[in-house]
Amino acid sequence: MKKGIQERRRFLALGAGLAGLAACGKETAPSMIGAGLRAYGDRSPREKAARDAKESPTPGTGSTRTPLQDLDGMITPSSLHFERHHAGVPDLDAATHEILVHGLVERPLVFTMADLRRYPSQSHIYFVECSGNSRAEWTGSAPDPQQSAGLMSCSEWTGVPLSALLKEAGLKAQAKWVIAEGGDACMMARSIPLEKCLDDVLVAYGQNGEALRPEQGYPVRLVVPGWEGNINVKWLRRLHVVDQPAMTRDETSHYTDLLPDGKARMFTFMMEGKSIITRPAGKQKLVHGPGRYEITGLAWSGYGKITRVEVSTDGGATWADAELQGPVLPRAATRFRTAWNWNGGPAVLQSRCTDESGYRQPTHDELVAARGKFSDYHYNGVKSWFVKADGSVADA
Amino acid sequence: MKKGIQERRRFLALGAGLAGLAACGKETAPSMIGAGLRAYGDRSPREKAARDAKESPTPGTGSTRTPLQDLDGMITPSSLHFERHHAGVPDLDAATHEILVHGLVERPLVFTMADLRRYPSQSHIYFVECSGNSRAEWTGSAPDPQQSAGLMSCSEWTGVPLSALLKEAGLKAQAKWVIAEGGDACMMARSIPLEKCLDDVLVAYGQNGEALRPEQGYPVRLVVPGWEGNINVKWLRRLHVVDQPAMTRDETSHYTDLLPDGKARMFTFMMEGKSIITRPAGKQKLVHGPGRYEITGLAWSGYGKITRVEVSTDGGATWADAELQGPVLPRAATRFRTAWNWNGGPAVLQSRCTDESGYRQPTHDELVAARGKFSDYHYNGVKSWFVKADGSVADA
Repeated sequence: MKKGIQERRRFLALGAGLAGLAACGKETAPSMIGAGLRAYGDRSPREKAARDAKESPTPGTGSTRTPLQDLDGMITPSSLHFERHHAGVPDLDAATHEILVHGLVERPLVFTMADLRRYPSQSHIYFVECSGNSRAEWTGSAPDPQQSAGLMSCSEWTGVPLSALLKEAGLKAQAKWVIAEGGDACMMARSIPLEKCLDDVLVAYGQNGEALRPEQGYPVRLVVPGWEGNINVKWLRRLHVVDQPAMTRDETSHYTDLLPDGKARMFTFMMEGKSIITRPAGKQKLVHGPGRYEITGLAWSGYGKITRVEVSTDGGATWADAELQGPVLPRAATRFRTAWNWNGGPAVLQSRCTDESGYRQPTHDELVAARGKFSDYHYNGVKSWFVKADGSVADA
Repeated sequence: MKKGIQERRRFLALGAGLAGLAACGKETAPSMIGAGLRAYGDRSPREKAARDAKESPTPGTGSTRTPLQDLDGMITPSSLHFERHHAGVPDLDAATHEILVHGLVERPLVFTMADLRRYPSQSHIYFVECSGNSRAEWTGSAPDPQQSAGLMSCSEWTGVPLSALLKEAGLKAQAKWVIAEGGDACMMARSIPLEKCLDDVLVAYGQNGEALRPEQGYPVRLVVPGWEGNINVKWLRRLHVVDQPAMTRDETSHYTDLLPDGKARMFTFMMEGKSIITRPAGKQKLVHGPGRYEITGLAWSGYGKITRVEVSTDGGATWADAELQGPVLPRAATRFRTAWNWNGGPAVLQSRCTDESGYRQPTHDELVAARGKFSDYHYNGVKSWFVKADGSVADA
């Protein structure tokens, strides 16, 4: 008989039937009636998955990361979607909030949330990733999936195409860019090329079936598929149609990528293909000893659909295709999985993804050769996890 | 210029630029830094969408319905997934909970939650619908989407195929059915044909990215795609492989469908094709007067993918195809939408769906002609909403 997980199940030397039940374990069915109904549910208090807060010395600015190692499937629970704020989470009222569309348009317009809902809406499952995600990997490394890549989350977003609002306002011939401004205290603003605005940008009010969460822009935000998180402006209050980028704080002093020659790349909107193994991964342990395990993780690319994820258990010497969980959607997190029979020796686990544009995730060395070590943003190199003989897993 | 929604926007008689901003509305950007970071988020306290509790006189049994009229997209927020309990929500511990597999197997086995996670897992977006959903429509009617069809929700479920566990235990030749038993106080149990168990049933531990919610079976449940909710046994503790159905309480005194001749249909597992318009719908109002509105709703079928949803605004005299929001997935809720130009007169809104098997949702009269009025379960007739000249919408 082939060796498999069943070798390590506890076999019950009992006849079939209820006689086996008492022996079944530490827990039997409760004899008391359980808890009652609730208008709005919550998770089990036994569950502890949490975003980790990284407060900045500057009041109101900071981030929390999604605990990728605790996630299943492709949807990020809204309660665990990463946060990134520059002036805290404003308390906006959906009943009175408005969006102004003005500038190089025929008709400046104001939209209430009720106005917005009269337009044809769309729902799409998209990832949002902060371009500062994995920043630690440029010059050092991060110890677990959350620390390494937890500034990426994936939700079903619902909203109205931005193109519908711009067409309603009527674009003038000189219109080339749109400055999106948030309703937080710092009025965080970014310039977006008009071509993207007319393509697939959503003015989104829904997240995973319900209203946007406050920290995700309640009551309304931009979702700019595949582009860096910062440009997906939250708490949206103004869309200013202009003929050139505004050179706002967050596209000049921030969110530009320093190259070795001292120049900086700017308008690096695209979040390129990236993947990470989330189990087994740093800070975890293979507690069952040698034998069969599932390797799983997430891959995503701003260029479109993930077409392939390869997994290595020998530090990149050999690779095997992982299975992709369908539906594989453009610009959405894609779950990959592969079976692994751990022989009990040291191993280095890696994943690398390829997308439908043909882009393949680079190694750390390839990325550093192209961009140096001080780009700060847009790190997407292959991540390695080192499995020791005792089953513990650490950053490699 | 064509009439459209823009006619009813407030035009700003202002030059482009910041001068327009002060006039933009009641709310300006806050000058104070907003709220800080949180380990596990919650919705805005301004949002009020809620499950409605329907307590039974019998302690511990009852249900709550998903507020379908408040939902966007296809995912139901886990906090709003409908509930149906027969003995309340047990407080089970994932660290000690076990599943027993026994009966007509070669090797009785016990699986902890940690054991389960070593097997290859899958994630699928599936609806779950209580077969008692829309019960009121058999003999009367329900006033809004939540009351009419709120015992249907849709989640991304993650788990291990039941087939993997049964194969590990080794099925004997006489095996024909599996009795699944829950760990609630009433040990709710249902018999499932082995063929379905080996096809697509999941032993699920994940819901929308995180652990199952307590009221959805924490830490583990069955997901039986397309089949009536009750058989998707929650708080799963035992799988008893047998040669015939057990005739449990919930497949004899409940969950059978009384026909006009006094006989009852039994083992009516399949949830057939169904749809409902969720906006505009009962208890809502078209507050903007005549003009353009979006009609939207949900369709689903246990037979597979929805292929078509037709919408009528004249009580079924004429029909037009609605747009289906992709990805359209088998046995998942599918969002449909269509634009509607309301002329200000009375209207009757209806939807009907067709699935990939060719099954088309029946009218109320067709359904009653086939099954009488006292089936109690499996109501899936076309639902009508009556729009009055004042814009108010009511059950028709």
